Amino acid sequence: MTDIQFRDDVTVELVKASATDSDVATAARVSTIGGSHDRVVDLERDEGLINFLTRDRHGSPFEHTSLTFYIEAPIFVAREHFRHRSGWSYNEESGRYKQLQPVFYVPGMERPLLQVGRPGAYEFKHGSDAHFARMASNMITAYREAYDAYQDMLAGGIAKEVARMVLPVGIFTSYYATCNARSLMHFLGLRTKSEHATFPSFPQQEIEMVASKMEDHFAELMPITHEAYNRNGRVAP
Amino acid sequence: MTDIQFRDDVTVELVKASATDSDVATAARVSTIGGSHDRVVDLERDEGLINFLTRDRHGSPFEHTSLTFYIEAPIFVAREHFRHRSGWSYNEESGRYKQLQPVFYVPGMERPLLQVGRPGAYEFKHGSDAHFARMASNMITAYREAYDAYQDMLAGGIAKEVARMVLPVGIFTSYYATCNARSLMHFLGLRTKSEHATFPSFPQQEIEMVASKMEDHFAELMPITHEAYNRNGRVAP
Amino acid sequence: MTDIQFRDDVTVELVKASATDSDVATAARVSTIGGSHDRVVDLERDEGLINFLTRDRHGSPFEHTSLTFYIEAPIFVAREHFRHRSGWSYNEESGRYKQLQPVFYVPGMERPLLQVGRPGAYEFKHGSDAHFARMASNMITAYREAYDAYQDMLAGGIAKEVARMVLPVGIFTSYYATCNARSLMHFLGLRTKSEHATFPSFPQQEIEMVASKMEDHFAELMPITHEAYNRNGRVAP
Amino acid sequence: MTDIQFRDDVTVELVKASATDSDVATAARVSTIGGSHDRVVDLERDEGLINFLTRDRHGSPFEHTSLTFYIEAPIFVAREHFRHRSGWSYNEESGRYKQLQPVFYVPGMERPLLQVGRPGAYEFKHGSDAHFARMASNMITAYREAYDAYQDMLAGGIAKEVARMVLPVGIFTSYYATCNARSLMHFLGLRTKSEHATFPSFPQQEIEMVASKMEDHFAELMPITHEAYNRNGRVAP
Repeated sequence: MTDIQFRDDVTVELVKASATDSDVATAARVSTIGGSHDRVVDLERDEGLINFLTRDRHGSPFEHTSLTFYIEAPIFVAREHFRHRSGWSYNEESGRYKQLQPVFYVPGMERPLLQVGRPGAYEFKHGSDAHFARMASNMITAYREAYDAYQDMLAGGIAKEVARMVLPVGIFTSYYATCNARSLMHFLGLRTKSEHATFPSFPQQEIEMVASKMEDHFAELMPITHEAYNRNGRVAP
Repeated sequence: MTDIQFRDDVTVELVKASATDSDVATAARVSTIGGSHDRVVDLERDEGLINFLTRDRHGSPFEHTSLTFYIEAPIFVAREHFRHRSGWSYNEESGRYKQLQPVFYVPGMERPLLQVGRPGAYEFKHGSDAHFARMASNMITAYREAYDAYQDMLAGGIAKEVARMVLPVGIFTSYYATCNARSLMHFLGLRTKSEHATFPSFPQQEIEMVASKMEDHFAELMPITHEAYNRNGRVAP
Repeated sequence: MTDIQFRDDVTVELVKASATDSDVATAARVSTIGGSHDRVVDLERDEGLINFLTRDRHGSPFEHTSLTFYIEAPIFVAREHFRHRSGWSYNEESGRYKQLQPVFYVPGMERPLLQVGRPGAYEFKHGSDAHFARMASNMITAYREAYDAYQDMLAGGIAKEVARMVLPVGIFTSYYATCNARSLMHFLGLRTKSEHATFPSFPQQEIEMVASKMEDHFAELMPITHEAYNRNGRVAP
Repeated sequence: MTDIQFRDDVTVELVKASATDSDVATAARVSTIGGSHDRVVDLERDEGLINFLTRDRHGSPFEHTSLTFYIEAPIFVAREHFRHRSGWSYNEESGRYKQLQPVFYVPGMERPLLQVGRPGAYEFKHGSDAHFARMASNMITAYREAYDAYQDMLAGGIAKEVARMVLPVGIFTSYYATCNARSLMHFLGLRTKSEHATFPSFPQQEIEMVASKMEDHFAELMPITHEAYNRNGRVAP
């Protein structure tokens, strides 16, 4: 019997970054000082400038940065992620070229399972133990059966790109995602909930798990920009 | 028992278009004649101009066009389609907001099922009746079981966005896709195979089914551009 | 002596559009109703939906629209316009391929000429008649001398792409610009000032003249979307 | 009298880069090997992979790189550069916020000044000394007069954003440009001429001067990718 793995978390690793607060300030000073300015880091002056840029939505200086992440998440999360086009690049594991591994997402016990309210104003509430059991047993069974069918087709010589059609959107995929600080802030504004947000967002919890881990790296790499982002309502400049 | 539908085709409807050969020629003449040119359609002169633009890769005039398609295709096809970012807009049926219908893709008998060769140089060959039977029975069973699990979770009050995790990438989704003639030609260059192509492409057959139907509409709306595209190796200008 | 023309206005013509409120609503309903929905126009229901989409920043449905404008404006305005990349296409009169016409921008008497305050918080005030005269006489002379030099070089056989280097950024150019309702709203948010705006903007008056004429066409084509845009602080969804 | 500077060259500095051949190969291996692959650099295997990606137009792996350039060039060059939208970010010196310096472009003696042939098939030829003299004296005079008018308006209190309207497109500007290896290769394909090119290009010499310096940095940072680019006809994958 195939060794199937169930996960209730996601993986987000920072592969590499060329992204500092100073990059933003230096690029912005091309506008006001021109090429003659030195590129010395002066954190105090940078802070005021970055806050001004964020507040008045001068977004382009934030684009001279680059962050590359390695992500493991279920396909339904990758699908939401890949909707972000502007300033994003992706490379994903291919079900045409390789056999997908039997790793599946099953929500953890703290994940609210019940949806109340109406479209556009949904809220999520925790279910009972019975709700959790019904969800988990259905998922685990469906995942196993789908993966068995996948393996049986592969064993029978069916092409990977055909056999994979039975695999559920809850199976894990892996991908590289490269963005800049501006496109990342736009993503975070839509894919996280925060008390600092001027505009409400309603992300599915699983993509918020990815976004939140990306935000941790962002806050560490660019603390001044991250702070300005929060102070200005988490609206991407 | 749920009434499940199996399809081996895709749907592509042209919802609307603002895309003619004359749009391309008129936009291009802004460069060479400026604003003083009239916008009279002169197909003979347009043909030479469009062929020149295509050959010498002056791509921007082709962008002043817009085509909106309504598409029904399996999720694994939509996933490939949505990788095209530049000059493409999408709106897709949401598994968070509505219950997905039990419509699933099963390859038809003419679909090659066997993959031979190595990564980067795959070829596809037809299988035996036994191959087809093994594929079809596995798929149909897996689809049914997945949809049953989905329905059981919904019946138990589990949120749609959670229950859908078990649904396979072979389930149909529907979406609007809007592009311009340039982004469409780029897409066709990668997602179709053609004897006219300067560069080889290796699309999965199912997205080629979508691309091919889009190309039919394109050829009808913009026959001169389509002809120039073929004549110049199906490389998007 | 060359017949030079001075203008204090800009031209914005709507060349063509495939852009209605109903396009937005129909695309949005793919998400919540899927492919089975009819595409009947129901303005009352559309209005609520469009307002909801704008408020909660569901931007993609607004992209299934296309507006093509023909614009005559000075080069310094075109330069600001062309900074807008996402969802914008351009074709501009080329100083390499044609001789540029002697049409130049001179601000009208109602144009504030004095800049007070500091970078990031400029205000503009009206000058005296002497200010206007100094500006106008300097401009007219400089424009004439530049165009004379241009013509002398052309007469001497110098290539157009070389001779044009002396032409000022105040000379008129003409271009086609195609956008969708979403990219247009983003542009308007940055390039107009309005009492409805949640965020302040500081456009140069001349690009605001272009933006304002584009907004008139937009408001006429898509009145419900335009109204929702104003009601929600002129922040592009 | 103002101290005016004339230049016949451009400046291109590499500000920073996160761009190696190994970045491309590592991103590509996500597709075929998935997340489980190590990221060890193996130049020999990378070379084959990168050549394959370039030949078969798998472009996305090349996007997980970032190069930031500081450029000084005339406005007419910046105008051509900024037409490249996809995968490019810019920040430019602003004539609204700062006084522009009196640095102007005058073609050097080796620059062909005569344009022969017809639109779409121009060729450039060297002129006589008289051609050069006529060009240079017209330019130098026109530049001086324009800058004098600019300074007179500024001295009279006219706003910078108004006074700059008389400045010619031959004046130098400075800007930051950030791109990735894919968008850079697309730019180079259109803005350089090369014996390796499958498709002909007709760049103006001055933007080719910028492109050529950018290519030098690119070739040094990513020698395997650069080699594959040349070997495959300088068509961006």
